[in-house]
Amino acid sequence: MIKITLPDGSVREYPKGSSAMDVAISISEGLARNVLSAEVNGEVWDADRKITQDSTLKLLTWNDDDGKATFWHSSAHLMAEALESLYPGTKFGIGPSIDQGYYYDVDFGDKEFDSADLEKIEKKMLELAKQKNTYDRKEVSKADAISHFNEKGDEYKLELIDGLEDGSITFYTQGGFTDLCRGPHIPHTGFIKAVKLLNVAGAYWRGDEKRKQLTRIYGITFPKQKELTEFLHNLEEAKKRDHRKLGKELELFTFSEKVGLGLPLWLPKGTRLRERLESFMRRAQVKAGYEPVVTPHIGHKNLYVTSGHYEKYGEDSFKPIQTPNEGEEFLLKPMNCPHHCEIYNSKPRSYKDLPLRLAEFGTVYRYEQSGELHGLTRVRGFTQDDAHIFCRPDQVKEEFKKVIDLVLYVFTSLGFQDYVAQISLRDPENKEKYIGDDALWVEAESAIQEAAEEKGLNTVTELGEAAFYGPKLDFMVKDALGRKWQLGTIQVDYTLPERFKLEYTGSDNQKHRPVMIHRAPFGSLERFVAVLIEHCGGEFPLWLTPDQVAILPISEKYADYAQELYSALEEADITGFVDHRDEKIGRKIRDAEVKKIPIMLIVGEKEADQKEVSVRKHGQGDQGSMSITDFIAYFNKEKSASLGN
Amino acid sequence: MIKITLPDGSVREYPKGSSAMDVAISISEGLARNVLSAEVNGEVWDADRKITQDSTLKLLTWNDDDGKATFWHSSAHLMAEALESLYPGTKFGIGPSIDQGYYYDVDFGDKEFDSADLEKIEKKMLELAKQKNTYDRKEVSKADAISHFNEKGDEYKLELIDGLEDGSITFYTQGGFTDLCRGPHIPHTGFIKAVKLLNVAGAYWRGDEKRKQLTRIYGITFPKQKELTEFLHNLEEAKKRDHRKLGKELELFTFSEKVGLGLPLWLPKGTRLRERLESFMRRAQVKAGYEPVVTPHIGHKNLYVTSGHYEKYGEDSFKPIQTPNEGEEFLLKPMNCPHHCEIYNSKPRSYKDLPLRLAEFGTVYRYEQSGELHGLTRVRGFTQDDAHIFCRPDQVKEEFKKVIDLVLYVFTSLGFQDYVAQISLRDPENKEKYIGDDALWVEAESAIQEAAEEKGLNTVTELGEAAFYGPKLDFMVKDALGRKWQLGTIQVDYTLPERFKLEYTGSDNQKHRPVMIHRAPFGSLERFVAVLIEHCGGEFPLWLTPDQVAILPISEKYADYAQELYSALEEADITGFVDHRDEKIGRKIRDAEVKKIPIMLIVGEKEADQKEVSVRKHGQGDQGSMSITDFIAYFNKEKSASLGN
Repeated sequence: MIKITLPDGSVREYPKGSSAMDVAISISEGLARNVLSAEVNGEVWDADRKITQDSTLKLLTWNDDDGKATFWHSSAHLMAEALESLYPGTKFGIGPSIDQGYYYDVDFGDKEFDSADLEKIEKKMLELAKQKNTYDRKEVSKADAISHFNEKGDEYKLELIDGLEDGSITFYTQGGFTDLCRGPHIPHTGFIKAVKLLNVAGAYWRGDEKRKQLTRIYGITFPKQKELTEFLHNLEEAKKRDHRKLGKELELFTFSEKVGLGLPLWLPKGTRLRERLESFMRRAQVKAGYEPVVTPHIGHKNLYVTSGHYEKYGEDSFKPIQTPNEGEEFLLKPMNCPHHCEIYNSKPRSYKDLPLRLAEFGTVYRYEQSGELHGLTRVRGFTQDDAHIFCRPDQVKEEFKKVIDLVLYVFTSLGFQDYVAQISLRDPENKEKYIGDDALWVEAESAIQEAAEEKGLNTVTELGEAAFYGPKLDFMVKDALGRKWQLGTIQVDYTLPERFKLEYTGSDNQKHRPVMIHRAPFGSLERFVAVLIEHCGGEFPLWLTPDQVAILPISEKYADYAQELYSALEEADITGFVDHRDEKIGRKIRDAEVKKIPIMLIVGEKEADQKEVSVRKHGQGDQGSMSITDFIAYFNKEKSASLGN
Repeated sequence: MIKITLPDGSVREYPKGSSAMDVAISISEGLARNVLSAEVNGEVWDADRKITQDSTLKLLTWNDDDGKATFWHSSAHLMAEALESLYPGTKFGIGPSIDQGYYYDVDFGDKEFDSADLEKIEKKMLELAKQKNTYDRKEVSKADAISHFNEKGDEYKLELIDGLEDGSITFYTQGGFTDLCRGPHIPHTGFIKAVKLLNVAGAYWRGDEKRKQLTRIYGITFPKQKELTEFLHNLEEAKKRDHRKLGKELELFTFSEKVGLGLPLWLPKGTRLRERLESFMRRAQVKAGYEPVVTPHIGHKNLYVTSGHYEKYGEDSFKPIQTPNEGEEFLLKPMNCPHHCEIYNSKPRSYKDLPLRLAEFGTVYRYEQSGELHGLTRVRGFTQDDAHIFCRPDQVKEEFKKVIDLVLYVFTSLGFQDYVAQISLRDPENKEKYIGDDALWVEAESAIQEAAEEKGLNTVTELGEAAFYGPKLDFMVKDALGRKWQLGTIQVDYTLPERFKLEYTGSDNQKHRPVMIHRAPFGSLERFVAVLIEHCGGEFPLWLTPDQVAILPISEKYADYAQELYSALEEADITGFVDHRDEKIGRKIRDAEVKKIPIMLIVGEKEADQKEVSVRKHGQGDQGSMSITDFIAYFNKEKSASLGN
């Protein structure tokens, strides 16, 4: 008998040579039907592979990332089987699972492959899947492996085998197809119920552009048809919501090659959005006791040598700026913290002055290779909603709780309801990797954990993920399409106070070193706006959207009234525009809908006579007529509601 | 007889050989008593010098800058006379008038000069002044001049004579003192009624640090004692109002050598002030049809080669920023205009879209030698309240008028009542110096002049002072101490539209080039804040001041009520702080007065019981008690009044 320890800590005994599947069946038939593979002593195995010693075991299903990876890797084999059967003589490179699906690099020889083939392959794959062929693992000697692929004439597999050690080689066979493969695989092809080939691209063999270009076929599969439908829908949605596309259509931002790639130019509408986000955050922060500061975008190179940022960013980033006065070198700031440390140091501090919370919308610059730039999510200059809290060690927990409140307030106001917080702690096995006093680490780590617990956060804890200078808490939000984004971060820091010799006089009249907390709920304003655009598909909450109303006069006869209305709304802090174009009202409405303006105010004879507006909501149509005063009240109610708090 | 043309254009006849003084006497005895010198055909002359041909004549008095200069130059001679009489053997370098007063560089030989001597000299000067000695002009030959100073043994004067041409040399003598001097001088020493020697410093002969260091004595004189008293008062005031001193005391900004000289760090209170100024301007600009944008603080070097700024700032400023990708070079932006041109170019524009007014609080960087840095007035990085108006040529005048409105609104809101606008036009003799079509220049120049006239501005017009790329209008304000500062500027620009190939489609369906107007009412936020601090001595208008109220609990028993009051005021957008220190109320009031907090709210038992506040105004004392609600209303009334509009 062997002992199997399950994730919940329970231990069960099974006959030696039992498989994960045997364990699953012993627990529940229903569970067994969903098992795709299993983690045995930390390694992912076939579910039917025999376990011969005491082990820890985790059964993997579609709900586990490793389960999905097994599923998609097996789907790559299924596609290869289909290709071999449809196009005999096809040779195969590699076929791994990826983040969303899998691909296989293949050499079709002389065959011209075109996208019409894709449908044929999908059909074939589903046909083979229905046969419920098992994936059979077999250990083979290097000589046998070579002879197998020699026979098939597949030089790619032969090259791969060449790099493997004898005794470590395995083949997997399902139906009539055998592949060189380390595994693991799902129990049988019948699990695969839905198939979609997504894309065909060229890929050099082994990524070497001097070698042959193979055909890379991307695909994705699911255990249920419904999941494929949902995936394809989300794919379409993601394209429609691409912030680069919407940013252009809604005239939020632009790039200019003359100014430089990765350096966004915020257009008037984008700037309005940005200013609203900033003033929303400014207000929330002032209320939470932060004090805004403004610092320059450069600093002496030595400032960053002191802070350690030069070591971190110096080589790969924007180089130091020389001056006519030789020896005086500046750096574009990659971080705001050194400047805030200097503000802390601008006068003596007492324990009564702490916590000191310095906040700045600080624009920082970091060089990225042009190939890595992507819309607003990877840029060369971005504005952080940065703040640094300088506090006593005994204040860390309370400050953490306050920052959590702020972060959650921000998420709710912007419609991110689904998030998880990751607590990153030291690797307890490698404490020497981290700087700072052990007692301070213990205190700070428990402060973070307690703060998160007292705030009822949904957390995961990762050991060894702390920064070398302190533990941290990161927030990951899920957007409307289920994609995860890392946003807000809160980090404890013992290094900078040391490096900048920050001090305060304690109640004991002695000098002490404060703790620093770095925090940025948005992270980068640019990246946050990108995520927000994709999350809401450009339909921003009313309080935030650049143009809140479009005033649409039915004809130019009502232009004066439209303008009067515009001024009245401006006075009431409602922003928008008058569509003075000489177009039919239907066209004006359609255009305002395309621009995602939340509220349209249609004005014609009746409205002008009675000083009224006819209200139409984006995607919801007519809301009836009301007086201007009533509309302002209606608007303010809608606006409050849009804050989601 | 000769014809004398006076400034009002009137022409009078006088006997040949009459002097300016003769003309003055013929007009009025009272005027004659005030004449210090005269401008004859554009040259400043002694008032008693004979005029022998038809001439234009302007009589110069204390009210003219050139009149003051004559007065102070003559005072330098008077001081020299006093020095020679007190310290025989003293040798003299040069003794010019300066902006405020005059100096003389002298060589006392072995004598140890100390500041106790100053009073003695002042006394002697007043004694000599009372003798009403005339300043007598005499033309001398070079040989006679050399022999005179050889006799005195004054090597400095001899060196000066060495550089002069024979026939051009004049001496002036008053009382027993004779100086080598081109003149002119005042009629006699009796005009000088008040004397103050201000400062003693070392100065190398001819500014050459390899030559002898002379003693430079600075002084100032006035025709009335009262004016000296006022001057000394203002001097004291200016010291008290020095923005560097107040900036520190009021904790508005600081500098850090580690960050870099000339790079201000805005402290929380300064940031609040700055944010208020920005949001005040933002609101005013949005109302005036400006659209805010945000652009990065760097751009490709080539962007500034295109704009011409690299040629202008490149060599003497921050050098280009290299990157890991060789060949890609960036520049810290010295100006925002190129970025705004790229935004203009980001989509096609039609004549109907113009004017397009792009506004940005854009931080720009320009290297200054460390010796030239001065508080916030000369810095290496500053934020402009910048905007660029892209318009059709026929819109220039209307846009200019709108900008004038905005500038005047800003001045009034900030308590600058006294200003003059300078219109800078082309030099009509040198039209080839300027770029751009002649017809456009004519149109733009008359647009500016008409706009200024229609707005009833108090203007002076300077020919030849236009920028090479277009005419401009600059505003000079006078501060509370009568000092002049150049603030807002409005400039027409034909170059950048050309360089960036800006275009719009006209109503004729053809491509046209827009005109650009640069404008910045504050100019630089940093410099503006400096001027504002000195203008109001740190007592900012209520709407602008960082801490509007100080809540002063009489003892810690009322701390809770103080905090409650603080929250109520915060809710009503009134900012300030609670003085929770364990100090007597008298001390708290004194400290709040020193910090120039406009309103103090004293809370004790009665106030806490009745939910009231006891109001005290800075420098004005007790204003009685009122309910919180009444106080908020009172505050808002005071705040509106402080906007001065």
